[in-house]
Amino acid sequence: MAEEAVFDLIHMEAVSYVFQGEKISEDEAVAKLEHMGFATGYRLVERLTRESGRFKDELDIMKYICKDLWVTVYKKQIDNLRTNHQGVYVLHDNRFRFLSHMAAGKQYLQYAPRYLAFTCGLVRGCLANLGVTCVVTAEVTQLPACKFQIQVQRG
Amino acid sequence: MAEEAVFDLIHMEAVSYVFQGEKISEDEAVAKLEHMGFATGYRLVERLTRESGRFKDELDIMKYICKDLWVTVYKKQIDNLRTNHQGVYVLHDNRFRFLSHMAAGKQYLQYAPRYLAFTCGLVRGCLANLGVTCVVTAEVTQLPACKFQIQVQRG
Repeated sequence: MAEEAVFDLIHMEAVSYVFQGEKISEDEAVAKLEHMGFATGYRLVERLTRESGRFKDELDIMKYICKDLWVTVYKKQIDNLRTNHQGVYVLHDNRFRFLSHMAAGKQYLQYAPRYLAFTCGLVRGCLANLGVTCVVTAEVTQLPACKFQIQVQRG
Repeated sequence: MAEEAVFDLIHMEAVSYVFQGEKISEDEAVAKLEHMGFATGYRLVERLTRESGRFKDELDIMKYICKDLWVTVYKKQIDNLRTNHQGVYVLHDNRFRFLSHMAAGKQYLQYAPRYLAFTCGLVRGCLANLGVTCVVTAEVTQLPACKFQIQVQRG
């Protein structure tokens, strides 16, 4: 729990630092956090998978993200993984840690994207390192639950 | 080790993000990282000490920083604590984690302060929350060893 706290707090500081920046729009700030997440994910997965075997296929990689990676970073697994078997994967986290500090209430929903951007980048970075090029978006339905959608880019 | 990696990497991204900023001097960037560390430390120690007892005295607080706090954040204890018993404490870390990724060599020494600023703030924030107002500076002698000097501000 203590270790989680350190990571949570430095992440929150990064979010607040990026949004404090002068002359930066909401979209730019979100993009910058996404980029920080991408770099973190890219290098993290390199360390984590150094000694593990290769993955069987794309679905196998997604399962790795939902289990091993999520446990390493967020101390829990993704609660539900869905796919249309055509390159779209939806990861449901019923209690996403970076949202769990937010009070439930519709008035806070507008700020949720700030707390999802780093993780969208993290997932995209991990997948990029594993050879999967994709777009990752996130959506909050009811705090602190959210879903991450991965759209794999073919060819 | 995996958890350490996540924290190390997000810290490195924060450093690189702050230094990428346009029109920001080295001193300003270091100050911003110090501030991020302060906020993180202030809130972290609040969570960590919520259920522990009160501290006996200032030295007792410093020992807590060197042992419990350092283990929580950096997975090792401070190697040596010295004090002049007049409000100056020097904490030696023989292998500071945020420096351990840097190649040894004098040409890299100039960049070391970037990787110490967050931690100076972290220590200052922890101590502020525990009622000790101080100035924290850091110095590298030989990578990856460094020392943090705490100067308590009286009255």
